[in-house]
Amino acid sequence: MRFHVLVHLKPDVLDAQGQAIEQAIHSAGYESVHSLRVGKSFYLDVDADNPADARDEIERLCAETLCNPLIETFTYEAAPA
Amino acid sequence: MRFHVLVHLKPDVLDAQGQAIEQAIHSAGYESVHSLRVGKSFYLDVDADNPADARDEIERLCAETLCNPLIETFTYEAAPA
Repeated sequence: MRFHVLVHLKPDVLDAQGQAIEQAIHSAGYESVHSLRVGKSFYLDVDADNPADARDEIERLCAETLCNPLIETFTYEAAPA
Repeated sequence: MRFHVLVHLKPDVLDAQGQAIEQAIHSAGYESVHSLRVGKSFYLDVDADNPADARDEIERLCAETLCNPLIETFTYEAAPA
């Protein structure tokens, strides 16, 4: 089963990378852009006997490996194969 | 208008970072995971007079700054404010 996972810093955590990208975008002439936040996007397959097991596995995988729950949040959804 | 942008390497471009993450995940005991691809996720606001202008701006922004069209593709959609 294929999943799409998004991992972003929590809203109250400083996003230094996002601020740097926003400044670079302004320097390139795009003054209309603001409040940019950057995160990670993952597409991955999870082998499991059934969709419920696959969802249990992706939930654990996100919480334990892809995301640092102290400063980040994650969302996931099934993705086209 | 707030947008969510995803930038990923084209399918035929080697994703060394994705491979490294997949190996680390396997080392952590998640053997069921494979075909992992990693990319970037952006949330950002674009100030514009109307939604059509905002979409023109985000399209140009993606093509000219957030994405390297030689090796990456992008998708975007309107996001909740």
